[in-house]
Amino acid sequence: MKAAIVGATGYSGLELIRLLTNHPYITIHSVVSNSYDGKNGEEVYPHLSGVELPRLAPMDKDGLADGTDVVFFATPSGVSKEYIPELIEKGIKCIDLSGDFRLKSPSLYKEWYKYTPASQKYLSQSVYGLSEINKEKIADAKLIANPGCYPTAAILGILPVLKQRWIDETSIIIDGKSGVSGAGRGLSLGTHFAETNENVKAYKLGKHQHIPEIEQVLSNAANQSITLTFSTHLVPMTRGILCTIYAKLSEKVTSENVVSLYKEFYRNSPFVRIRENGTYPSTKEVYGSNFCDIGFAVDERTNQLIIVSVIDNVMKGAAGQAVQNANIMMGWKETTGLELSPLYP
Amino acid sequence: MKAAIVGATGYSGLELIRLLTNHPYITIHSVVSNSYDGKNGEEVYPHLSGVELPRLAPMDKDGLADGTDVVFFATPSGVSKEYIPELIEKGIKCIDLSGDFRLKSPSLYKEWYKYTPASQKYLSQSVYGLSEINKEKIADAKLIANPGCYPTAAILGILPVLKQRWIDETSIIIDGKSGVSGAGRGLSLGTHFAETNENVKAYKLGKHQHIPEIEQVLSNAANQSITLTFSTHLVPMTRGILCTIYAKLSEKVTSENVVSLYKEFYRNSPFVRIRENGTYPSTKEVYGSNFCDIGFAVDERTNQLIIVSVIDNVMKGAAGQAVQNANIMMGWKETTGLELSPLYP
Amino acid sequence: MKAAIVGATGYSGLELIRLLTNHPYITIHSVVSNSYDGKNGEEVYPHLSGVELPRLAPMDKDGLADGTDVVFFATPSGVSKEYIPELIEKGIKCIDLSGDFRLKSPSLYKEWYKYTPASQKYLSQSVYGLSEINKEKIADAKLIANPGCYPTAAILGILPVLKQRWIDETSIIIDGKSGVSGAGRGLSLGTHFAETNENVKAYKLGKHQHIPEIEQVLSNAANQSITLTFSTHLVPMTRGILCTIYAKLSEKVTSENVVSLYKEFYRNSPFVRIRENGTYPSTKEVYGSNFCDIGFAVDERTNQLIIVSVIDNVMKGAAGQAVQNANIMMGWKETTGLELSPLYP
Amino acid sequence: MKAAIVGATGYSGLELIRLLTNHPYITIHSVVSNSYDGKNGEEVYPHLSGVELPRLAPMDKDGLADGTDVVFFATPSGVSKEYIPELIEKGIKCIDLSGDFRLKSPSLYKEWYKYTPASQKYLSQSVYGLSEINKEKIADAKLIANPGCYPTAAILGILPVLKQRWIDETSIIIDGKSGVSGAGRGLSLGTHFAETNENVKAYKLGKHQHIPEIEQVLSNAANQSITLTFSTHLVPMTRGILCTIYAKLSEKVTSENVVSLYKEFYRNSPFVRIRENGTYPSTKEVYGSNFCDIGFAVDERTNQLIIVSVIDNVMKGAAGQAVQNANIMMGWKETTGLELSPLYP
Repeated sequence: MKAAIVGATGYSGLELIRLLTNHPYITIHSVVSNSYDGKNGEEVYPHLSGVELPRLAPMDKDGLADGTDVVFFATPSGVSKEYIPELIEKGIKCIDLSGDFRLKSPSLYKEWYKYTPASQKYLSQSVYGLSEINKEKIADAKLIANPGCYPTAAILGILPVLKQRWIDETSIIIDGKSGVSGAGRGLSLGTHFAETNENVKAYKLGKHQHIPEIEQVLSNAANQSITLTFSTHLVPMTRGILCTIYAKLSEKVTSENVVSLYKEFYRNSPFVRIRENGTYPSTKEVYGSNFCDIGFAVDERTNQLIIVSVIDNVMKGAAGQAVQNANIMMGWKETTGLELSPLYP
Repeated sequence: MKAAIVGATGYSGLELIRLLTNHPYITIHSVVSNSYDGKNGEEVYPHLSGVELPRLAPMDKDGLADGTDVVFFATPSGVSKEYIPELIEKGIKCIDLSGDFRLKSPSLYKEWYKYTPASQKYLSQSVYGLSEINKEKIADAKLIANPGCYPTAAILGILPVLKQRWIDETSIIIDGKSGVSGAGRGLSLGTHFAETNENVKAYKLGKHQHIPEIEQVLSNAANQSITLTFSTHLVPMTRGILCTIYAKLSEKVTSENVVSLYKEFYRNSPFVRIRENGTYPSTKEVYGSNFCDIGFAVDERTNQLIIVSVIDNVMKGAAGQAVQNANIMMGWKETTGLELSPLYP
Repeated sequence: MKAAIVGATGYSGLELIRLLTNHPYITIHSVVSNSYDGKNGEEVYPHLSGVELPRLAPMDKDGLADGTDVVFFATPSGVSKEYIPELIEKGIKCIDLSGDFRLKSPSLYKEWYKYTPASQKYLSQSVYGLSEINKEKIADAKLIANPGCYPTAAILGILPVLKQRWIDETSIIIDGKSGVSGAGRGLSLGTHFAETNENVKAYKLGKHQHIPEIEQVLSNAANQSITLTFSTHLVPMTRGILCTIYAKLSEKVTSENVVSLYKEFYRNSPFVRIRENGTYPSTKEVYGSNFCDIGFAVDERTNQLIIVSVIDNVMKGAAGQAVQNANIMMGWKETTGLELSPLYP
Repeated sequence: MKAAIVGATGYSGLELIRLLTNHPYITIHSVVSNSYDGKNGEEVYPHLSGVELPRLAPMDKDGLADGTDVVFFATPSGVSKEYIPELIEKGIKCIDLSGDFRLKSPSLYKEWYKYTPASQKYLSQSVYGLSEINKEKIADAKLIANPGCYPTAAILGILPVLKQRWIDETSIIIDGKSGVSGAGRGLSLGTHFAETNENVKAYKLGKHQHIPEIEQVLSNAANQSITLTFSTHLVPMTRGILCTIYAKLSEKVTSENVVSLYKEFYRNSPFVRIRENGTYPSTKEVYGSNFCDIGFAVDERTNQLIIVSVIDNVMKGAAGQAVQNANIMMGWKETTGLELSPLYP
């Protein structure tokens, strides 16, 4: 199977290259980058020295379709929607790592992303690629809207207990903490080393564009409209997201009950690992891997359930999940090319 | 005024030395460290090379009292309560940076700290040294229970709006993020560089010994029993605490209203700085200083108030506040010896 | 092929587990750890959750030999020499990641390591496992002395130009910079996060036990006795070693000449990558991989050759090279199980 | 005394503000920043919230002179030389933190900086502001060329032993390691957090513009032309420079001899601290302070002297030394406003 990667010099694009060069069934057919047009990968990414890659080319609609089976878009918001409809019509599968096709409602997209939305037709066709939740639809999809990094950790963390109706669905608060690679490779003072190192900062409190994405998925799952509080923080590390999720318990359940529920819920999900014995995962425990690790505490004093969910934002939060979805779409084993243990320490 | 520092080789003790060597009215009379008995400071702390300090001595009850006006205890839990009663009886002022005298209830102390509590007599005498809240009592105190690092950031962040009764007092959730120096200088795998770097981890969810301390202060202030959810996280940096505080608004107020309330509440508090315009403070903005910076967001979709409160845990969260309390006790200007701008970057 | 790992809970042991669980021809037969006796890996290393591993067992000489084809020793200095002779006699191959069998001279070992050396018989049998230099001997070896982390980067960096006699062999200075994982998993104030973060420090200047190892290999290669200056520094990161190597040029050569020489020298070495065009590698460019990347500058003003050589100390500097050596010993393709791209960013 | 700061929003400018707001004899009269014209400091630097500062103004030659006694230029190369001659003629003292007036030879400036040099007249007038070396000339100067960060650490580290003629002056190699703030506040991929964190990289080997500066000062001191090898590395921390300096001993001296020589040489230099007993300083031991700490090793095997010299690049390497020079120019105590202990940890 031949793949094209659009946005091949950003962090998600780069991780796609790392994964696909080791994938047994996918070969990289073309790599598109407007920023580094005409250079070979080795010049742009010395760490890939020795890896044979197509020369970086600028965006070319026709060339992109030529001989390609699947296109991964690792582009900023507002880009992929310009190219995907045509590719879909030509029968090329698309996996979009940006937010352009995640929200089913064009008006919500416009409100939160400030761009013109894609047409309803393609929004409707797109399948939300949270592999653990939507496996069957993904298998049949032509267009995958690959989830955002925070939504992946948040939804995998809260969904089972919400569906089980063990929590007050109006009480959900998600406190997200992310490494700096989540902000991408674009330069800004907020990601300048000397400003970011030895620093924790909150940003976009209650205003992050991942909010409607999380609410949409949870509302569908719960069959009722979910509104929640979501805040985000930048921590001085490169990779990793940890979401601390708070919800009021509406049933009398113990931490052990919750562990059992999640183990059952994810029994066929090779990348979700449930922590036992009152231990919680840390981001380093999934570093460089496609795992989502989840642990729990029940605060009996306040009847709060506290869920800790961690992922590597570049892997399960972006490129790893995109490859997982490609595997599912093609009917391959879900873990193909993704059997990477976390790098520790 | 002559000061003794007990526990002079831990991080709080060390910061006390940094502050007191530049304090115009306090001289360091003796420094006590069982771990480094008999060494001079320069050997133990090369960064203090050139600073004249008394030789490190082991604990000696009588020697400690001799010629000393005030004793700072920068010791682990369970130590200061063995020495403070006798010192108090000798008329020596004590400022205890540990948790031994913070909780008025001996049984709560036993439950959360697992040590035998101090006697009720001295617990009752002790004044909780959150300088901004308790200034008058501190001025008359003989024994100061210097607040914990998390409680300082949390209480300063939530108290004004709680007292104003603008929030549902049953809805408070505090998500704390701390630099690693907060775990002290004792060695453990959890603070080993290679395990901690590039890692965020949750710990003691709902079980941190700072919970009853925060609840005691808020309950007193609100004249009703407050129970809250408190979780703590270790982030890969040395100094700094950021608390993200969530509370359901019970009144229709805007972010601007909250800013005004806090500006008024802290108008005589030189170390509390209120952020305007929907901006939030980051820990680097108070690095090395005694400030507590606070910012706000009102999430109108969920009617949540989100408060971000930051301190340097070694300064306002420990040694800086201890010196601030010493200043207040002595009737000096509160900021004496503490006019240090944050180190940026 | 069945492998045992002794010292399975240190960083090198752990990396061996990461590599061997993905190795197509090796299975992990037993894992030995005196520190965590009787626990399963998941408890000790939550990041390995889901990986099936033998239960951690304490050292047991007979059990170790039982059914085992090869034993990896990832132990501190002074341990492996107690066990290896007996294993060798039983026909079990040994790969020793410690320094016990690297120095051919027992007296040098005693001088630099301060332990009783292994017997001359086994020292003589041991083959120095710098895969790129000693491939033929490694193929026939029963006992591999796996190189130290600094020596791997340093020797690969300087050897070709030394053998070519383009430098004054009395002028070599190696300035090493290492991430903190190189200091191992043992606790010390020197690797305590708050002391190590935001800090660069020099240590063991001219006194590091890797000095005689480097000199022994270079002396053999150059057929003359080499004495050099070697200094080491700890930098605030987890993984990676960068050696800056200085040598006076004795011939009139350009940077391009040096690049050509190295490309030719390492033409059959898949893990050595030579940088061109006056660029130098950084440690992140080999992070998590088995590569050694080397770049050059010729300072024409001073006639100095400056060589920059980087490795991941846990991989090519320890576990990765050990697996590379196992592959060579077994006649497998050298890169088997090691085709991991660096993790970037 | 009224000071203007030009380039007040870069890191050196910012540190000048931190120092001058606490200086007893200097007040900040105006702050110039083209980038943040018209904003007040609080908006640009929230960490300075509460500090009263003049509003940021764009460069205005006449306004700058008006009512000002001294102007600090914390500007990039090529800027200050356009303004300083006119200010000097008006009798205003200038302290230039950029490289524009450091090299006495216009052609050397052109070669290494690639800008048109300042006129010889003002280059000749300028006094190189390495406070410990040039105190008398600084006291009489109108124009100070404040030293570069690397040269400060390097020259203070090597000068005494060079003047004493204990080393072979052709053998000097300086291996510099710097925190990322040294690269300034301008955005680049090389200082982007995700690229810089967990990474050590070499840059400008043998080509750094600080090379002629170091050579000029050492040549003058030694009364002979000194050419040396200098390489620079970026390490993942914010502040701090450590220079490891190698020189062949030409005399039979011990480490103790060297310590004695340096103690004597710097006996009147309050900011230079000499380490004894074979210990070396680390950058954290001078963090946030104006100290330069120096330690030594003599490698008897190779007859090499190894000197370790550390500074905080933003303090002694820039703003701190500028204030020290201002103190000397004004006849005040050298340490005025600079009595800041290092921040540890």
